[in-house]
Amino acid sequence: MANLLHIDTSPRGERSQSRALSKYFVEAWKDSHLEDSITYRDVGRNSIPHVDEPWIAACFTSPEKRTSDMWEAIALSEQLVDELMAANVYVIGVPMYNFNVPSGFKAYIDQIVRVGRTYAFEPEDKESPYKPLVHGKKMFIITAHGAGGFAPGGRLEKLNHQAPYLKTAFGFIGITDITFISVENDELGGQKLADSIAAARAQINKLVNVPAINQNK
Amino acid sequence: MANLLHIDTSPRGERSQSRALSKYFVEAWKDSHLEDSITYRDVGRNSIPHVDEPWIAACFTSPEKRTSDMWEAIALSEQLVDELMAANVYVIGVPMYNFNVPSGFKAYIDQIVRVGRTYAFEPEDKESPYKPLVHGKKMFIITAHGAGGFAPGGRLEKLNHQAPYLKTAFGFIGITDITFISVENDELGGQKLADSIAAARAQINKLVNVPAINQNK
Repeated sequence: MANLLHIDTSPRGERSQSRALSKYFVEAWKDSHLEDSITYRDVGRNSIPHVDEPWIAACFTSPEKRTSDMWEAIALSEQLVDELMAANVYVIGVPMYNFNVPSGFKAYIDQIVRVGRTYAFEPEDKESPYKPLVHGKKMFIITAHGAGGFAPGGRLEKLNHQAPYLKTAFGFIGITDITFISVENDELGGQKLADSIAAARAQINKLVNVPAINQNK
Repeated sequence: MANLLHIDTSPRGERSQSRALSKYFVEAWKDSHLEDSITYRDVGRNSIPHVDEPWIAACFTSPEKRTSDMWEAIALSEQLVDELMAANVYVIGVPMYNFNVPSGFKAYIDQIVRVGRTYAFEPEDKESPYKPLVHGKKMFIITAHGAGGFAPGGRLEKLNHQAPYLKTAFGFIGITDITFISVENDELGGQKLADSIAAARAQINKLVNVPAINQNK
């Protein structure tokens, strides 16, 4: 039995393609993983604060030395990290905003990349002082692009700063098994958008039949 | 006479390297451009909200059809865009957070990339429907990296999702004359950090003598 963490990051509600497809994914997943539990986190409609100086000071103070104010500064971050660690599978809906992730999802990532929790810093290892601490997870990222051509091989691939960044940031904490599913042409609409949604749904229908927990980690 | 817009994006105060160097840049600039005016915007310590659905709805409604609620939803955005358009030179201090910009600066960028204001959408031009509207500007971005090697040619260059993204996002609205100045090894400290700061200051001392306004635009 796995725990699936479903995250939406679009500020839009009904009009969000990434939200509609992440929901589609999770519904399909449930059908083939009857015993899995689902946790839902909406960072698109429930604003995640930017990290601030008290947050940074608290994170870089070892837990046994943190004051109660420090614990308060990172209370949400602690909750988000607990939730991340407790899940085995992630399904994340992410629109592309200005060639990158929306700022609300960047705020979420800044909250969960935490020394001593999701990565370790070992300065004595000069070659590779940063060690990932999140192991054996599987991630599905459903992206929605206003234009077409941001997918690998597309004419705008080099302007897609979203997928490469997400691979690096999640890879840094140890999440390396990431599958991207993309809807394109959201702004164009019409048949091109409909075709893109149909292709994404077909890809999802195949993906939901994979085993929930990696056996090779 | 030019108007320089100085933006800080670090959540840190005194401990921020990007903040110290953007200040150093602006002070040096003033010495060689006595008549220029300076506008200051601190998005690192004064939180910029994530764009939300009412914001999106307002932006994609033509100005003459916007209700007063819509204008209210984009009031800050309007102010930030006015400020951006009124400046000729930008000096921006940006720490690297998880291989990208801090979420607060992403929120700022999401607020200033605005259809009809900083770019135009012309669907009849199938080849190139997006047109930049911000012309003849010069930008200096001072980045601070915890580790070393993110600069061009460095061993971590491929993990630097900050500089390529900033070039794309600002290039999209027409700001293509961008110079990067980087401080590295902030987390390491010691001599390596001191050397990096000295090199950045030397680069700045040369840069501030360029003409404030592009003559070729």
